[in-house]
Amino acid sequence: MLQPTSPERGNEYLNALAAALESGRMVRLRRLLSSLHPAEVAHLLESLPPSTRLLAWRLVGTEHQGVVLSYVGDEVRSDLMDNIAVEDLASLTENLDPDDLANILRELPEAAIEQILHTMDAQNRRRLETVLSYPEDTAGGLMNTDTITVRADVTLDVVHRYLRLLGTLPDTTDSLFVVDREDKYQGILRLTTLLTRKWELTVTEVMSHGVESIPASLPTVEVAQRFEKRDLISAPVVDEEGKLLGRITIDDVVDVIRDEADRSLMNMAGLAEDEDTFAPVLISLRQRSLWLGINLMTAFLAAWVIGLFEATIQKQVALAVLMPIVASMGGIAGSQTLTLIIRATALGYLNQSNTRWLLGKELALGALNGLLWAVVIGVVSAIWFKGIGLGILIGAAIIINLIFAALSGVVIPIFLRRIGADPALAGGVLLTTITDVVGFMAFLGFATLYLV
Amino acid sequence: MLQPTSPERGNEYLNALAAALESGRMVRLRRLLSSLHPAEVAHLLESLPPSTRLLAWRLVGTEHQGVVLSYVGDEVRSDLMDNIAVEDLASLTENLDPDDLANILRELPEAAIEQILHTMDAQNRRRLETVLSYPEDTAGGLMNTDTITVRADVTLDVVHRYLRLLGTLPDTTDSLFVVDREDKYQGILRLTTLLTRKWELTVTEVMSHGVESIPASLPTVEVAQRFEKRDLISAPVVDEEGKLLGRITIDDVVDVIRDEADRSLMNMAGLAEDEDTFAPVLISLRQRSLWLGINLMTAFLAAWVIGLFEATIQKQVALAVLMPIVASMGGIAGSQTLTLIIRATALGYLNQSNTRWLLGKELALGALNGLLWAVVIGVVSAIWFKGIGLGILIGAAIIINLIFAALSGVVIPIFLRRIGADPALAGGVLLTTITDVVGFMAFLGFATLYLV
Repeated sequence: MLQPTSPERGNEYLNALAAALESGRMVRLRRLLSSLHPAEVAHLLESLPPSTRLLAWRLVGTEHQGVVLSYVGDEVRSDLMDNIAVEDLASLTENLDPDDLANILRELPEAAIEQILHTMDAQNRRRLETVLSYPEDTAGGLMNTDTITVRADVTLDVVHRYLRLLGTLPDTTDSLFVVDREDKYQGILRLTTLLTRKWELTVTEVMSHGVESIPASLPTVEVAQRFEKRDLISAPVVDEEGKLLGRITIDDVVDVIRDEADRSLMNMAGLAEDEDTFAPVLISLRQRSLWLGINLMTAFLAAWVIGLFEATIQKQVALAVLMPIVASMGGIAGSQTLTLIIRATALGYLNQSNTRWLLGKELALGALNGLLWAVVIGVVSAIWFKGIGLGILIGAAIIINLIFAALSGVVIPIFLRRIGADPALAGGVLLTTITDVVGFMAFLGFATLYLV
Repeated sequence: MLQPTSPERGNEYLNALAAALESGRMVRLRRLLSSLHPAEVAHLLESLPPSTRLLAWRLVGTEHQGVVLSYVGDEVRSDLMDNIAVEDLASLTENLDPDDLANILRELPEAAIEQILHTMDAQNRRRLETVLSYPEDTAGGLMNTDTITVRADVTLDVVHRYLRLLGTLPDTTDSLFVVDREDKYQGILRLTTLLTRKWELTVTEVMSHGVESIPASLPTVEVAQRFEKRDLISAPVVDEEGKLLGRITIDDVVDVIRDEADRSLMNMAGLAEDEDTFAPVLISLRQRSLWLGINLMTAFLAAWVIGLFEATIQKQVALAVLMPIVASMGGIAGSQTLTLIIRATALGYLNQSNTRWLLGKELALGALNGLLWAVVIGVVSAIWFKGIGLGILIGAAIIINLIFAALSGVVIPIFLRRIGADPALAGGVLLTTITDVVGFMAFLGFATLYLV
């Protein structure tokens, strides 16, 4: 099950699998599945519609199901796990790393977790309980407990002999961790150092203090930032007293980065970050219709604003024709600012002094863009409806709306973050509500005052 | 310059730096800067407005400027490099890895590259030229040439002695590469294997064939997918004949993943993927106003559609009040489908058979959501404007628009990708054009036929 396949070959396989699934050739299918890497099986499962997904899942050998589960996304995983009996889960998850296992267990009811913990040996149970005691989105929940530790006062010769005694090292081990008698983290001993320095030297003489320990309570997003900035492969996780609890490796950090990026993209469209593309219609309907309902309220608010000016529109229907332009330009310009600020906040660019500068810049941009497009839109409108007054007032409305759009684009995400809400999720709705209301109000209001 | 600082301390430093910059205390500032990690200096530079950015850049010791340059984003880098003389660049880039150096050189005119290549020794020049000969977005452009190679027929004992002779290994070395006499890639020898197995064994006996070589021409996005799926730390890059050219390490892949995610998010708002948040107003104006201009054309198209029904609106102004609701619901629903499909394509989920299933699902969702909200909107409209006919026809328009939105959300990104365009960039504009036009056309068209 573990030999490599190139992505091209992988994709061919996926197509072959899909074909075999459709035609129901189960023997061929089982053979195909067992020749794939677990990550590829996971990918296949994620790209199958509900009915065939379950069929394929049942054909995955039970000895591989655990590893495959550790590779699929959260939503697909809980979909698959609904079809496994708790007593089977225990055997199925036997060979997983504590962090992968913890992820899977978090989905289960308390009683089921107890049952699985009971089947484990004392050491593995203790390790798993440590990971489970921290929230999923902290360093403690992300870490693995398979650290190899050494003492600072031994020679490299001793370390070499110790490693040969162990026989194997956990995946992605790039360093050993140096701890004192009380298990407190002291520094790392890189494998590259161990291989290139003289064996008479002691660990103290060659260990590196360059990798800082990560508190178990640090949010995973900050863990990822630290890994990215320092080009780390692994880093030690410690408790409040500085005792080594485990290590975080780059492969888990990559998942955090991918999830975080997905979250912004999906949330902006009101989708769940881990939405199962192939979820059954009725499951998707709940999430999607909720989002449409929220947006409908803002649409009704905009309609109500327009309704205030019914009499004006009656007198000059050109206003009805042109008003969506004012609202739409505000929405587009505001979204640009909003996206920029959401990204700047995520990357940790903003502080008090540069936020003020940035607000100034965005307001200037709004005003300049407003002026530029006010002229274009004003001229076109004046010619289209043969009225210079109409052209001037739509231009004025555009300038006002683009300035408000810039202001909202900066203020809304900062405000949302301060109250603990996700700017990517709520920012767009709030912003377009403001640009719609301001746009319609300015345009139709000016028209009522000056035109009709 | 290289001792670690925690993010918290780092941020304090950034604030202290910002304050020192504002008050002009240059001595203090220089001291602060030299105590930071190059990644933190890069981060600081990226979060400074243009004038202070240049000031801070000049205070970075010239011996560190090269490393700092390798950490900043493309746009900020070219901004900073405009202020360095070519003859200074040569000394400044002395200690960089070939891949970082290549990234920087790609920004320079041919003559300047020649000049810098001339100052390098033969080996480094050859390495750099190899990297430069591949496009930036391929494995060859991403790779580093600092591979440590061994032969398959030697014993581990020989390898150990060779490494101690070398004295140091490049950063993020987790494996040595096994090559034959013609430099053809044979497999990897993990450092963990080297440390745990008996020294009498030969490399052949313990090397791993589990890491496939990456062709130098493979796009970086696919390289990233392969690293993610296989939890790789490093992988060998080969030419068409299978000769080892270099290696790609996970830290560079993390940058690819981050850039790729950024690209989708930024492109959806019509922003450059690497847009400098603190670029001068006039630089940002060009990009932003272009995007507004494109959107304005679609807004005018929608206005033109409304204009076709001026007479109808004149007779019943309620239509003008309600029509933005029809368009907006279509836009929101369509964006959800579009985002989902863009993500599914990026993750490689789609093939012919499941695309058809997905289209069916999205159409069903569109129809169901259409039905649901048609009832809500229809009832509210009928009550608001005291007309059952109006309620029925806005409901019908909503259903039609939401079905068209689902169709466009699936078809547009697939079509754009087939013609080689970026769905994240052009998808949203095309989609809202369709939902605007269909929404207004259906609603006002029905009204013209049946209501007035």
